[in-house]
Amino acid sequence: MANTALPLMILAEQFAKLPGIGMKSAQRLAYHVMTMSDEEAKDFADAIINAHNKVKCCKVCENFTENELCPICNDDTRDHSTICVVEAPKDIAAFENTNEYHGVYHVLHGLLSPMDGITPDKIRIKQLLTRVGQGEASEVIMATNPTVEGEATAMYISKLLKPLGVKVTRLAFGLPVGAMLEYADKVTLYKALENRNEM
Amino acid sequence: MANTALPLMILAEQFAKLPGIGMKSAQRLAYHVMTMSDEEAKDFADAIINAHNKVKCCKVCENFTENELCPICNDDTRDHSTICVVEAPKDIAAFENTNEYHGVYHVLHGLLSPMDGITPDKIRIKQLLTRVGQGEASEVIMATNPTVEGEATAMYISKLLKPLGVKVTRLAFGLPVGAMLEYADKVTLYKALENRNEM
Repeated sequence: MANTALPLMILAEQFAKLPGIGMKSAQRLAYHVMTMSDEEAKDFADAIINAHNKVKCCKVCENFTENELCPICNDDTRDHSTICVVEAPKDIAAFENTNEYHGVYHVLHGLLSPMDGITPDKIRIKQLLTRVGQGEASEVIMATNPTVEGEATAMYISKLLKPLGVKVTRLAFGLPVGAMLEYADKVTLYKALENRNEM
Repeated sequence: MANTALPLMILAEQFAKLPGIGMKSAQRLAYHVMTMSDEEAKDFADAIINAHNKVKCCKVCENFTENELCPICNDDTRDHSTICVVEAPKDIAAFENTNEYHGVYHVLHGLLSPMDGITPDKIRIKQLLTRVGQGEASEVIMATNPTVEGEATAMYISKLLKPLGVKVTRLAFGLPVGAMLEYADKVTLYKALENRNEM
């Protein structure tokens, strides 16, 4: 982007900081901003500032919300005795899309990764323990990703939760629906075999 | 993105308006903005407004610039008698990257496309004619993309330029360097054959 205006280069660099956007895409996006009307550009900039300033974490489940409580924690028709523990707010959307989960959530905002300096005090584990300690929960579902960090975090939290007398469960591992056996990896196939159910 | 904060949904919709960004990516980008510091979010928003407000078109070549003249038009070491006509400012970067073009540019900011309502008065053709009419140019290189619209625009402009007594050329068509003959499309291969050079 040499030979173009400096503010355009600065904008392209800002876009390039976003996840999954390389310098080439960032330049294309910066050029696109130039084709916006004044109002569109202002709306875009305002949306960034608003999302950043007006959105906070639900004081019960740590999900993003504009109010004290998120819509899910505020919903009396939900089962507040079942807490699904997820890594990030975006994971809630995945469960809500199934239309099959009627409990509530707890967002950790990260996974344990001591190598990267993410120790238990860096994610929202304490808040979960306090919440469960208050006695409303009967089951906590560990719904972190099936990765090394996700597994380690689920294991760590479950050890802290069990003394509180709550049932702790983990998402099932097995074949994804619609998968082809020949393309399944060894570990998944082993888990599917190990966790087989009677028909 | 139901069950999340409204400002986040609004931001995701803004991202989704950008070219090549679908709703899923837009949501991921919106969540990423939440992880930025206050200062980073402000810098991002300011970059959009600044690029939009401070950048204008060079009064000679219509390239984006912060000043009256873009750095290329302002450069006395360039050959101001050769004008390369391109569709958009980003095309200039492609030519500059070759380090082989030392002339100047003219940016049309679009291609003729009567079906989409883009008639000759909607793109910067008049400015090019005025510029060439002032007599400084000896050659105009039509460097629009080899698409239907690019070809039509090049043809249209060349017909207007020729009466002004200027040499009008078009980028060469042929095989891209490093290409495999078996994968070349018929039209490209025909053009490569037709425009063959003596060795």
